Amino acid sequence: MNEHISSAYDRDLEEIQSLIMKMGGMVEHAILECAKALEVRDIDRAEVVRKGDKAIDALEEQINEAAARTIALRAPVSKDLRTLLSVLKLSASLERVGDYAKNIAKRTPILADMKPISGADAALRRMSKEVQSMLGDALDAYVRNDVELAESVRQRDLDIDQMYNALFREFLTFMMEDPRNISACMHMHFIAKNVERMGDLVTNMAEQIIYMVTGEMPEEDRPKMSSTIAAQEI
Amino acid sequence: MNEHISSAYDRDLEEIQSLIMKMGGMVEHAILECAKALEVRDIDRAEVVRKGDKAIDALEEQINEAAARTIALRAPVSKDLRTLLSVLKLSASLERVGDYAKNIAKRTPILADMKPISGADAALRRMSKEVQSMLGDALDAYVRNDVELAESVRQRDLDIDQMYNALFREFLTFMMEDPRNISACMHMHFIAKNVERMGDLVTNMAEQIIYMVTGEMPEEDRPKMSSTIAAQEI
Repeated sequence: MNEHISSAYDRDLEEIQSLIMKMGGMVEHAILECAKALEVRDIDRAEVVRKGDKAIDALEEQINEAAARTIALRAPVSKDLRTLLSVLKLSASLERVGDYAKNIAKRTPILADMKPISGADAALRRMSKEVQSMLGDALDAYVRNDVELAESVRQRDLDIDQMYNALFREFLTFMMEDPRNISACMHMHFIAKNVERMGDLVTNMAEQIIYMVTGEMPEEDRPKMSSTIAAQEI
Repeated sequence: MNEHISSAYDRDLEEIQSLIMKMGGMVEHAILECAKALEVRDIDRAEVVRKGDKAIDALEEQINEAAARTIALRAPVSKDLRTLLSVLKLSASLERVGDYAKNIAKRTPILADMKPISGADAALRRMSKEVQSMLGDALDAYVRNDVELAESVRQRDLDIDQMYNALFREFLTFMMEDPRNISACMHMHFIAKNVERMGDLVTNMAEQIIYMVTGEMPEEDRPKMSSTIAAQEI
């Protein structure tokens, strides 16, 4: 590959990288805002998150097109091709995290009419804050090609799973105590599950970044939520 | 592009297509089997589904590698590139449908120890059967480049959403009637939600196929579950 083509590829990649960072920042914001809107039962604030998802989706499209165009024009191979294919996976994961934030925002008006479940909103906000912080680190790891940082993000998913499990047990108790709590708890449980899934997606992103940099997927040594269903979720 | 390179590309694409069809067949089987194992409370049968997911994941890897190799070697543009990038999205969706089947299989041993919720297992099996049939049609549409068939798959997602909503209401009623049903209903509800998500993923696949063939994403005119939360899930 000659100098000219190589630097054209680099420019393309920089453009894509800045789009990913922009999209990532918007998704981080959506995660925090949907949890905050829920906690303070602010329907308008939730509506802003819901509407904002369109812009996130549009960015994914733009990233996909830029990556496809770069592949077509520059015909990259090996690590360059791997980077571009990874970008497609990263933007797809970001889009799904944004979708979960939107879904949480959609439930806020419903929950605004119900009696709050003591302590659950604050617990959800802490959980969302942790996911947002993991995402921030994943994006840093992406820009800096930092495998160690990506690995640390991956390990933190266990905390999210534990927060989710604690909430699940709490909701069960509230429902058993008083059937009038059932509807609210079902909705809150959905939301907790959505945040837990966001954590899974950010973890997938961290693994994709490790793959992008090293060419190898990390070993399956992180404890996964799905394998702890039997023990915890009863 | 000369004859020789063009036919090499065609051979690559045929290989990838047969891998997608193989993966799709395995996922169809997993959908049916996880629902059947749940209905007859057959833990061993569920375990086969759980273990079988590894083979599905391995096929996704194989498809990703084949697509990346074809992109690197043949440097396809326009429709050919779009087809290969679509293949990556299709295999990612199939992998996620397989994951949901695995998650359902994982809950079967837990539910085997609980009192069944009248009629819910059969309803879930019908819902799974419908998703499997949609997936079969989506795969046909992919092989035949059949936009009309893909469009019909997309429209059928509404039926899945309605089945899910009916089950959701049923679970709520059962929980309110008798708190001892709460644990079982929470697990069954998770499963129903997983099947509903499978339907969403198959719908995404149908849309990706339409994009692959026509170069344009279909308009957002299908009624989506997420937009009906407020009305239905209370």
